[in-house]
Amino acid sequence: MTPRKGIGRTPPTSAPLAADLANMQHAIESAAAGLAEGGVPIGACLVNNRTGEVLGVGRNRRVQMGSAIRHGETDCLENVGRLPASVYRECTIYTTLSPCAMCTGACILYEIPRVVIGENESFLGAEQTLKAHRIKVHLQECKVMMKEFIDMKPEVWWEDIGEEKRANEA
Amino acid sequence: MTPRKGIGRTPPTSAPLAADLANMQHAIESAAAGLAEGGVPIGACLVNNRTGEVLGVGRNRRVQMGSAIRHGETDCLENVGRLPASVYRECTIYTTLSPCAMCTGACILYEIPRVVIGENESFLGAEQTLKAHRIKVHLQECKVMMKEFIDMKPEVWWEDIGEEKRANEA
Repeated sequence: MTPRKGIGRTPPTSAPLAADLANMQHAIESAAAGLAEGGVPIGACLVNNRTGEVLGVGRNRRVQMGSAIRHGETDCLENVGRLPASVYRECTIYTTLSPCAMCTGACILYEIPRVVIGENESFLGAEQTLKAHRIKVHLQECKVMMKEFIDMKPEVWWEDIGEEKRANEA
Repeated sequence: MTPRKGIGRTPPTSAPLAADLANMQHAIESAAAGLAEGGVPIGACLVNNRTGEVLGVGRNRRVQMGSAIRHGETDCLENVGRLPASVYRECTIYTTLSPCAMCTGACILYEIPRVVIGENESFLGAEQTLKAHRIKVHLQECKVMMKEFIDMKPEVWWEDIGEEKRANEA
């Protein structure tokens, strides 16, 4: 996608600030777009901390594309396209839901130093692994959207996180 | 892709056997196809241990597709398409090169119980992480192809593993 100007430089520090909330909004909008397409509502956004530029957004498109690897974060990285290693290392990735092992691994691979997570109650991903790799993790608040979706389409949701039995139980 | 019949049931046991060598050959052929396209020669193959069926193959297509997420293993999973969780859990993934953090995370996400690796000298991925998740890891021998490629296109190679400086040093 064509890079869009972000809302300002994201801080390397602790508490969610205005820039983080605004950047997370791009991820939430992407999640909502995915929901409108019939997909799982998880969105992501990659922002350059140094310039504040929004490099791209993505959304879970497993259902839409019949994909096994297009989660919110990986779709975002794919939409952004190939970047020099040094650029990833000055980015924050925003995601509406705690990253799974694959998306965590993508952050580790590219040494993305900071991850802002919308919620981790619908699904607690590999946050400890992120932290073990010295990636800064911040939590925000996106859980209402996920809860409504899981109630509506439990089988699609459980498949999304590599589960099966619970879909039958639902 | 249309599933192809594999060469027989892969064993749940230790040493590389005939079935593993033959299944790895699919991954090697995919790597060679990638090289012929101008890409990084890393291939993968997903096989159902119970039925012996080759579910699909993939190759690193980062260069070919301008992709940030199409490594050998993730391209293979994507080509195979969405599967029920129970199917992944009875599979072996063959890869010509030690899986990076992202591809390791994909194996963990889908609980693929067994990974056969062609070589881990060009790049040692997150094998300890695979083992920590009780994934069986076996090593085979594919290093000649990787060495020739890295000598030929060092900058493409270093980008593939999220590095930059060493490309300049090369």
